[in-house]
Amino acid sequence: MPEVLILMGSDSDIPTVNSAIEMLKKFEIAYEAHVSSAHRSPAKTTELVTNAQKRGFQLILCAAGKAAHLAGVAASHTTLPVLGLPMQTGFGGGLDSLLSTVQMPSGTPVATFGTGGSGAVNAALFAVQVLALASSSLAGKFSAFKEELAREVEEKDRTKAATL
Amino acid sequence: MPEVLILMGSDSDIPTVNSAIEMLKKFEIAYEAHVSSAHRSPAKTTELVTNAQKRGFQLILCAAGKAAHLAGVAASHTTLPVLGLPMQTGFGGGLDSLLSTVQMPSGTPVATFGTGGSGAVNAALFAVQVLALASSSLAGKFSAFKEELAREVEEKDRTKAATL
Amino acid sequence: MPEVLILMGSDSDIPTVNSAIEMLKKFEIAYEAHVSSAHRSPAKTTELVTNAQKRGFQLILCAAGKAAHLAGVAASHTTLPVLGLPMQTGFGGGLDSLLSTVQMPSGTPVATFGTGGSGAVNAALFAVQVLALASSSLAGKFSAFKEELAREVEEKDRTKAATL
Amino acid sequence: MPEVLILMGSDSDIPTVNSAIEMLKKFEIAYEAHVSSAHRSPAKTTELVTNAQKRGFQLILCAAGKAAHLAGVAASHTTLPVLGLPMQTGFGGGLDSLLSTVQMPSGTPVATFGTGGSGAVNAALFAVQVLALASSSLAGKFSAFKEELAREVEEKDRTKAATL
Amino acid sequence: MPEVLILMGSDSDIPTVNSAIEMLKKFEIAYEAHVSSAHRSPAKTTELVTNAQKRGFQLILCAAGKAAHLAGVAASHTTLPVLGLPMQTGFGGGLDSLLSTVQMPSGTPVATFGTGGSGAVNAALFAVQVLALASSSLAGKFSAFKEELAREVEEKDRTKAATL
Amino acid sequence: MPEVLILMGSDSDIPTVNSAIEMLKKFEIAYEAHVSSAHRSPAKTTELVTNAQKRGFQLILCAAGKAAHLAGVAASHTTLPVLGLPMQTGFGGGLDSLLSTVQMPSGTPVATFGTGGSGAVNAALFAVQVLALASSSLAGKFSAFKEELAREVEEKDRTKAATL
Amino acid sequence: MPEVLILMGSDSDIPTVNSAIEMLKKFEIAYEAHVSSAHRSPAKTTELVTNAQKRGFQLILCAAGKAAHLAGVAASHTTLPVLGLPMQTGFGGGLDSLLSTVQMPSGTPVATFGTGGSGAVNAALFAVQVLALASSSLAGKFSAFKEELAREVEEKDRTKAATL
Amino acid sequence: MPEVLILMGSDSDIPTVNSAIEMLKKFEIAYEAHVSSAHRSPAKTTELVTNAQKRGFQLILCAAGKAAHLAGVAASHTTLPVLGLPMQTGFGGGLDSLLSTVQMPSGTPVATFGTGGSGAVNAALFAVQVLALASSSLAGKFSAFKEELAREVEEKDRTKAATL
Repeated sequence: MPEVLILMGSDSDIPTVNSAIEMLKKFEIAYEAHVSSAHRSPAKTTELVTNAQKRGFQLILCAAGKAAHLAGVAASHTTLPVLGLPMQTGFGGGLDSLLSTVQMPSGTPVATFGTGGSGAVNAALFAVQVLALASSSLAGKFSAFKEELAREVEEKDRTKAATL
Repeated sequence: MPEVLILMGSDSDIPTVNSAIEMLKKFEIAYEAHVSSAHRSPAKTTELVTNAQKRGFQLILCAAGKAAHLAGVAASHTTLPVLGLPMQTGFGGGLDSLLSTVQMPSGTPVATFGTGGSGAVNAALFAVQVLALASSSLAGKFSAFKEELAREVEEKDRTKAATL
Repeated sequence: MPEVLILMGSDSDIPTVNSAIEMLKKFEIAYEAHVSSAHRSPAKTTELVTNAQKRGFQLILCAAGKAAHLAGVAASHTTLPVLGLPMQTGFGGGLDSLLSTVQMPSGTPVATFGTGGSGAVNAALFAVQVLALASSSLAGKFSAFKEELAREVEEKDRTKAATL
Repeated sequence: MPEVLILMGSDSDIPTVNSAIEMLKKFEIAYEAHVSSAHRSPAKTTELVTNAQKRGFQLILCAAGKAAHLAGVAASHTTLPVLGLPMQTGFGGGLDSLLSTVQMPSGTPVATFGTGGSGAVNAALFAVQVLALASSSLAGKFSAFKEELAREVEEKDRTKAATL
Repeated sequence: MPEVLILMGSDSDIPTVNSAIEMLKKFEIAYEAHVSSAHRSPAKTTELVTNAQKRGFQLILCAAGKAAHLAGVAASHTTLPVLGLPMQTGFGGGLDSLLSTVQMPSGTPVATFGTGGSGAVNAALFAVQVLALASSSLAGKFSAFKEELAREVEEKDRTKAATL
Repeated sequence: MPEVLILMGSDSDIPTVNSAIEMLKKFEIAYEAHVSSAHRSPAKTTELVTNAQKRGFQLILCAAGKAAHLAGVAASHTTLPVLGLPMQTGFGGGLDSLLSTVQMPSGTPVATFGTGGSGAVNAALFAVQVLALASSSLAGKFSAFKEELAREVEEKDRTKAATL
Repeated sequence: MPEVLILMGSDSDIPTVNSAIEMLKKFEIAYEAHVSSAHRSPAKTTELVTNAQKRGFQLILCAAGKAAHLAGVAASHTTLPVLGLPMQTGFGGGLDSLLSTVQMPSGTPVATFGTGGSGAVNAALFAVQVLALASSSLAGKFSAFKEELAREVEEKDRTKAATL
Repeated sequence: MPEVLILMGSDSDIPTVNSAIEMLKKFEIAYEAHVSSAHRSPAKTTELVTNAQKRGFQLILCAAGKAAHLAGVAASHTTLPVLGLPMQTGFGGGLDSLLSTVQMPSGTPVATFGTGGSGAVNAALFAVQVLALASSSLAGKFSAFKEELAREVEEKDRTKAATL
């Protein structure tokens, strides 16, 4: 049963969202992904978000760019935690997406991650961390992943920094 | 019958919105004003916007701050023209409100005005200009207003600049 | 008889303005487009704007970049609604064009749209929305367009998101 | 047993953090709050974070300003979800705090909320949402809270907007 | 006969413009100051600028804020050198005024000075430097002024820095 | 005898400076160009600037990027008018160069033009305007140039806009 | 014998510079402070900087605001390490000072610290760290200071956080 | 014995860091370079930094991007001077890296250099300047280097500027 509902405002967001999906797959977290716009398909978006809890989702990850309203709109229609992923844009690299996602007025939280691919990876990892609160097996996988990250850095240190 | 539906995301926006209301009153444009949040009262907001056209409104003016989604959300639920009024904030003076309002993705237009009180006056005046397209009497009033503005500047020129 | 007067400050703005023109064509809105600069051909610009109302135009759409004064200058010479379209630039992606267009002092409104191609599409759609206030046939077309947009998103959801 | 570990980089962050604490109290979420700096007391910070999981904490909320490293440093030492709260500053209103908190490189997520008091309220509410995943009673309280928010907006609509 | 024509877009600009005027007075440069808006009184502005050269002015100094078009509009109607003085605003301290003044498209130069009072002083001093090209007496005064500035700094060094 | 002294901080500025030089050549203004850095060759820079007036130069045009100090340093060593040309950079498109050039403290004016090639053209045209104050022949050429600019825009209007 | 030469561009910088001076006094580092402007008293500034090494100074700390050239100009005239302290300003909180100080072109380093009082304290502490490389007694004092900082944080944790 | 410890947060920073390394080699300064992340390999980073002083290092140079915490984390674990090198990023060209590095809260200094390659060269040169305080031979080399820089600029002036 999928645990993470992924919404993206446009199919142009797919390459960035794929960085999140790869990470969820690595942790064997089931997800369901939709292209659904806050502005162009608001009814569909509201329906997907409103039904998310009863369909068993634990978290909603929303990717959108420019005046990125998708995460905020989702958060207004659910009590589930909403993760916001601001797309990179031509406007200062994504300053518009970032501020539209993170500066939410009091009362409707959106947990925001960085712009672009790094943010996508981190949003997925954060979803894993939240799900791991109720799964010691997943918590163990995450700990192992953190150790793997450290080893990768140390491996790069040995192979690449050594030649400098 | 009111022609302009005014929505504001918070009652803290009232002082700024009042600058728009004064201008509408000056032109005897009927309006209806609501505090209704895109995030905290989404159902009420959707209802107000969805019914606006059949209730006879011609334009919707939305004032909101920070990650200001109100105008975009309104625009997603109506075919009426939507005017966006970004509130001044402590973040660069309203950079967050401005970008969240103006950088709308393709397909859902929000006509955006400047931050704060000047923007509120201008949003109201723009509403007058749109309504004047179907009212030669209102068009005449607007022309007279523009001449009055010019005279006011010239009066200040005579009284204030003369002393410099 | 053309209803939308399009002015652009430079012929380098044509590719962006074309996104607006395509949208006007889709709605069968007649327009007249000119390259006319606020700074390099001010007399021609003033003449075009000053005569716009008596020639039957309903709206003026102004595209300009950098210290983009064209929309503001147009608004100073007409009582018609003026739409401002800030060009993308190398300076933060168009921060200069955006602020020069949107931050109009009180008294002379410019309805501003986002930077670049999305903004151009939205400015044209907004013109359609304003013209639709006086044309139920155009209003019907716009409603159909919004439904088409929603269907397109749902189609992308089915074809593209399904594979993720 | 406290579920949320709150760290703040300086005692000057207390007024902002109090907005988060009030919200946690409203939901009867137990917390433990510490002044502990990533830079001035790194050993204490590392110790608090490293022991957080075995001490039974579910989430870590980190408030810091300027080059705000506290949330990122916490995230490097734990597998628990870390919430970042960027303080308002004199530099563009908190642009420095925000970017230092949200733009985390790939691999170490920090869920970031808006600058200042609204962000503090939202970070606390997000913690409630995460904890509610494992508590239907808390989930019920959060749903009631959302309805209360909507009612408050509607009450302000009736009392304040009616007079405009 | 006045040599510097000073235009300001609003009487709220007078305190800043006064810093420029004091400096012109110190150098006994005759000036004529007007409140005249690019947007609210465009005809008056065009007339003042168009006649400036034949009335014997050597330079035009334009002070304006927000989407500050006054200097650019002046430059489009004259061959005289135009100095632009961007007002401080609530938007990032005057980022809007500065970019609207300095980022002029190719062909219509505006010599821009810093935001606020320092910029006003500098615009006036620059006018003195230009006028001094044709007046060895004024050039001598300016040299003396520069030496005076250096002495003032050295005096502050002796009296204030000595106590640190 | 050269009238404009051109300094650039690096030979990488040559392509941008060439836009200014072409314009000076068009107006047959003699110039002398040097690569001379405020930081790497301060003695040479001071010498060039200090001697500029007695060698008969009328204006100094300084092009520099990043923390662009060249124009300010030149202005500190001369009573001639100094024009500042901020280079485009990878940092927001030249935000660093622009602010380092234009935000001069009170007492030492630098007349600043826009970032990059447009700014270079405008700085040269401004030099022509200043020199034209003492040359009716040059003033005539500049008037003709402005008319030529207007004609070029109108030609583009006829040939390019007509096809839209 | 003074080891740190402190230059500030204006006597208005004294309150900020005092935060640095207090810290130097705490570590018993001798210093000499001057008001000396890069722009208004360039000869005095050059003389102070050029003689700094032979007078026995080890470091030069330069405080300046807006288009802050003082540190860069100092660095061009000495081989001693130069520390740059950007003043807070009304422009985004000091964005102009910061970029003018830190974005130095290749070849002339300025070690830059944060805007305002925190930056001043840190510049002084960094000077202590550099001087401590040659003084084990000073290195010991600095270690003790770091421990004191940690204790202060922990004291605030006990007294202030405990009440939250 | 190496004197400069170089840490970089990612192997993607190597091309920029190489600009620093080349400069250290030119001055025959021994260094040791490591890929070690503040977030992904915090234990290794702490170990490297904590042992740096007893291993004889004089300075630590930290290169990192985005929410760049490496320099601040290093500074919290050592009394050695720490140099921060903010990487260029897609976000405004490195605004995130710069603010995360330079805006350090009071008590833990990071001497920050400009974004990208120029900053890397300058960080290395600054290290040379600090080391030269204890080595008259190195001080001589640095003086010679500054003269060489000036000669290079003058050579470019002769060969390139002469043709303009």
